[in-house]
Amino acid sequence: MGRMTQRRQVVRVAGATQSQRADTLAVEEPLEIRVNGQPVSVTMRTPGYDIELALGFLVTEGVVRDLDAVSGATNCADNVVDVSLRAEVDVAARNFYTSSSCGLCGKASIDAVCTASSYDVSTDPVVVTAPVLTALPERLRAEQRVFDRTGGLHAAGLFRPNGDLVCLREDVGRHNAVDKLVGWAVQQRALPLCGHMLQVSGRASFELVQKALMAGVPVLSAVSAPSSLAVQLADEAGMTLAGFVRGESFNVYAGGHRLAGDRHQSSC
Amino acid sequence: MGRMTQRRQVVRVAGATQSQRADTLAVEEPLEIRVNGQPVSVTMRTPGYDIELALGFLVTEGVVRDLDAVSGATNCADNVVDVSLRAEVDVAARNFYTSSSCGLCGKASIDAVCTASSYDVSTDPVVVTAPVLTALPERLRAEQRVFDRTGGLHAAGLFRPNGDLVCLREDVGRHNAVDKLVGWAVQQRALPLCGHMLQVSGRASFELVQKALMAGVPVLSAVSAPSSLAVQLADEAGMTLAGFVRGESFNVYAGGHRLAGDRHQSSC
Repeated sequence: MGRMTQRRQVVRVAGATQSQRADTLAVEEPLEIRVNGQPVSVTMRTPGYDIELALGFLVTEGVVRDLDAVSGATNCADNVVDVSLRAEVDVAARNFYTSSSCGLCGKASIDAVCTASSYDVSTDPVVVTAPVLTALPERLRAEQRVFDRTGGLHAAGLFRPNGDLVCLREDVGRHNAVDKLVGWAVQQRALPLCGHMLQVSGRASFELVQKALMAGVPVLSAVSAPSSLAVQLADEAGMTLAGFVRGESFNVYAGGHRLAGDRHQSSC
Repeated sequence: MGRMTQRRQVVRVAGATQSQRADTLAVEEPLEIRVNGQPVSVTMRTPGYDIELALGFLVTEGVVRDLDAVSGATNCADNVVDVSLRAEVDVAARNFYTSSSCGLCGKASIDAVCTASSYDVSTDPVVVTAPVLTALPERLRAEQRVFDRTGGLHAAGLFRPNGDLVCLREDVGRHNAVDKLVGWAVQQRALPLCGHMLQVSGRASFELVQKALMAGVPVLSAVSAPSSLAVQLADEAGMTLAGFVRGESFNVYAGGHRLAGDRHQSSC
């Protein structure tokens, strides 16, 4: 885990003063993911939990459904993970949604992801309460402080409906942090992640909603804004999507039926 | 430009109160980039400046050097741009650095980008002064306020050494915002962007330093943290990389020789 950060001398400028000092950087290195020895993707990631990252990537990109499809996974070199699958999969012919994908419009992208997903989150009966949801970002930051001295790492946390943290992963790329979490769940044979909430440190893009859906997560919560396509995919899939979770307030962009609590409704 | 944002009804929760209200989202839609009719990449982007985005992408990924290689570029459908090149380029056989690339280690990635770059930024004599640099994020935010009512758009701004804004672009993806800027410069035949500074709203990843280098930008400044590989690439390429530019202070991670001003040096 030491390789998650790196010390470096920087010039600090504050007003008219310049000084040399040491700074801690989040490490970014390429990881090559191979399937049955064949390279399928290179992602820029923070080292650590590489096998989880590879397994999570293969699940959230729809290559495999769960651990039953996997016969082994090894770090065959420092920045290379090879995942052996029980069946032959023609990964060369496969489109990865987010990097080299399909859709010519948002609707086609949504349809492609909904078709590919093994899990239906729309029927998940989990209830979201405002006090639990608003506490998640602080829980995430509290756990992150242990590792993140860089200001440069995104975090993704998996929580139970009562707010208990199940697992947290960090990465320079927010999609990698989620893939590491999902890969952890793959190894635990915990998919689909029914009844769980996923809290992310930044914004919610289409890609993050896609990854949550492919892992069967019914509730995604982001500290910042979601994009239009993230909201449309969550809506279509029956996922609850919360954003701008700050202090005691937040917005629910999709799946508001899971929201419990006092209903002092007003329209404005 | 109307398609950059979208209105949507959300449930706003503030303490014990829930209300319906309209919220403005940053639009995210896939863009397929084709070269001579052949699909080469799909990126999730905010609509607008699509041809700039495609041209910028092709330059920062090393497919073409400048406008001389391009015979035409058209929006052949809503979310499709086709760029016609004068010469045949086997884009299918080409590796894109950031999505499906080469290196098994950071050093190999750096070497690949430095070899591919048409421009040498190390000899650029531009001088960076602290008062100008620290004013850039506020300039960026001031211009962004015109467009960004979503909290969900990244911005990239191109500045002259005196702090004058040359061009600003926004996108849900920070790499797309930079590609749009570079594409604008391609159309203006302004490459390489000698003597210019690039200010970005978020963090500085390897990918952003790569894109700046491929466009010949000697100074990259980020509001937040750079990654280790971003710093290493900037250092190797002779680019000045500033981070945590906030208020009157910032850190210089690479290329500190361009920094002017009072040199009250102290070591701590």
